[in-house]
Amino acid sequence: MTYPPLRTADRATVQLPGIFREYRENISDATRRGLSGNTVGVYNMLRYYMGWVDVDGTPRVTTEGKALRPTLCLFACEATGGSIKQAMPPAVALEFVHNFSLIHDDIQDGDETRHHRPTLWVAWGVPKALVSGNVLRVAADMSLEGLVGEGVEVEQALSVIGLLTEAYLEMIEGQYLDLSYEGRPDISLDDYLGMISRKTGALIRCALHVGAMLGTDDPATVGAFRNFGNSLGYVFQIRDDVLGVWGDEDTTGKPVGADIRRKKSSIPVVYAMSQAKGEDRQLLVEAYRKERLNDDDVALVLDVMARVKAKDYAQSLTAEHGDRALKALDEVELAPVIRQQMEELVHFLRVRQH
Amino acid sequence: MTYPPLRTADRATVQLPGIFREYRENISDATRRGLSGNTVGVYNMLRYYMGWVDVDGTPRVTTEGKALRPTLCLFACEATGGSIKQAMPPAVALEFVHNFSLIHDDIQDGDETRHHRPTLWVAWGVPKALVSGNVLRVAADMSLEGLVGEGVEVEQALSVIGLLTEAYLEMIEGQYLDLSYEGRPDISLDDYLGMISRKTGALIRCALHVGAMLGTDDPATVGAFRNFGNSLGYVFQIRDDVLGVWGDEDTTGKPVGADIRRKKSSIPVVYAMSQAKGEDRQLLVEAYRKERLNDDDVALVLDVMARVKAKDYAQSLTAEHGDRALKALDEVELAPVIRQQMEELVHFLRVRQH
Repeated sequence: MTYPPLRTADRATVQLPGIFREYRENISDATRRGLSGNTVGVYNMLRYYMGWVDVDGTPRVTTEGKALRPTLCLFACEATGGSIKQAMPPAVALEFVHNFSLIHDDIQDGDETRHHRPTLWVAWGVPKALVSGNVLRVAADMSLEGLVGEGVEVEQALSVIGLLTEAYLEMIEGQYLDLSYEGRPDISLDDYLGMISRKTGALIRCALHVGAMLGTDDPATVGAFRNFGNSLGYVFQIRDDVLGVWGDEDTTGKPVGADIRRKKSSIPVVYAMSQAKGEDRQLLVEAYRKERLNDDDVALVLDVMARVKAKDYAQSLTAEHGDRALKALDEVELAPVIRQQMEELVHFLRVRQH
Repeated sequence: MTYPPLRTADRATVQLPGIFREYRENISDATRRGLSGNTVGVYNMLRYYMGWVDVDGTPRVTTEGKALRPTLCLFACEATGGSIKQAMPPAVALEFVHNFSLIHDDIQDGDETRHHRPTLWVAWGVPKALVSGNVLRVAADMSLEGLVGEGVEVEQALSVIGLLTEAYLEMIEGQYLDLSYEGRPDISLDDYLGMISRKTGALIRCALHVGAMLGTDDPATVGAFRNFGNSLGYVFQIRDDVLGVWGDEDTTGKPVGADIRRKKSSIPVVYAMSQAKGEDRQLLVEAYRKERLNDDDVALVLDVMARVKAKDYAQSLTAEHGDRALKALDEVELAPVIRQQMEELVHFLRVRQH
């Protein structure tokens, strides 16, 4: 089995940008408060999934996840002149909805581990895992009840709720498209981009949109943050697809070639299908027609991807959408430090290892 | 295998009370509008589940379900002086959330048919079925965006959203408890009543509460409808449990003894466990300790239930809670026709066949 060589930039340890450190503690406190319910055992399952406790409920020293969506929401609010207190309810909601979707994804995909730990359905069975995801989904809505308490006008609170609801719908419709596309050799680049814009883009776009909305009344600024988020969503998911095929198992927690094996229409596959000619294309189509891909099939698909330079292409797409993200900011005046933080963010999402 | 004899009252065809006919068309129109999305195939799955189309999308002549929750919501609003237009958004939300929970229940319980048709996971596979349930969950929230458009004040719209969110959480926590109680011989009557008050009571109580809230500002009236709903929830679920054990397969769509086979802590079992002595209790505990109950086990459990008169007991509980429901109405003055409709409703839920 041959793998495309990793370039030096990929191998270097990539530091989280400062904004992740800045809000980490606040987000951790607020999400923990949001899951402090004790009435039924399901909250232990959720605290386990968030990485705070072990299966038996023992507190656990942990490096929590990046908390990308809440970080973006708080950042957008503060960058546009708002108080992070007002952005915390939607920030928490976004983090909970993201994790709700992961809990259900694990069931759908039959994934047995995430972040190197057993998934909920493995530890507690499918029925309880499914229900626990639904509890987390409601916990997200409960979090929004804090908006008015933080001084957000009721009209604006309703607007925030409406935007989040639309984003959830887009996300879930995108998940449906993703499932529909599995194993299909005819998915175009446009199909793919439309699907990830919903599946992944919706929450990221919404995080920046809602955060900015709570920070400023200026529609141009809100629009610029929203558009930045729109492009950032592509960067995030395309890099995610790259890691899903060529990522290091130790850092991503997934085996190499995982997304190939499950016949996901991720960008390396979509691109390879569109570029491979003759025998290569035939090999790809036949591999994807199989019920299950074995190690040899995966190696073969990786070879074809290497020949069409699918990884370079995917990374060039992250560059393109990263540039668009920053270009969206040219429409408004931003303090240099804010602009710099957003540039760092784009760069980080292009090169991150997990 | 012996079954407890059906009494004559059980055998008679039970007519739906007038309020179901009164709102049926409005509810059907509004729910169809709420699922008119065409962008992705998931809406066909949902239209199928609602009974409007076949698997291939062909429209289908059908008698739709009772639509209990939206009917209660519209009725409470009109009975307290409101316009059903304002109660329609939460009515639709309640119907969608109820069906969302059924879609996920079917997956959890591995149920292959509902209303004599294949369930979604059977027809489309578990991953898409799971996602389609989540789409329906968001469709419920989208429906609430119609509140303000119908002239509901923003503060009150936020209150309605808050009440529904709490009801969803209670419902899902109740589902979690239900799963936790499966196969356990130590579930008390209080445990059982607490569980069904959440699992089933929450939406029914909320339907009447929110409907009345949109109809009147008088807290005593709103409280009376809420309390009526609280007791009605017990009546509904206890009768459901009776049908889950002794219901006619042709009308319920479930095989006789279905709830015994899956070791649900339904009231006939909880009562039998608490009443059976000596050998009978031993038989029950041993049956419920098994991984799977076969036909002989089910027959044996039915025999024990007959000896302790579990069905009579369950029906007496529906009488008790039905009386409490009507007693809650004594606190307020109601037009005789309204009171009569509510009495009809209680009676119907006590004797319904499906």
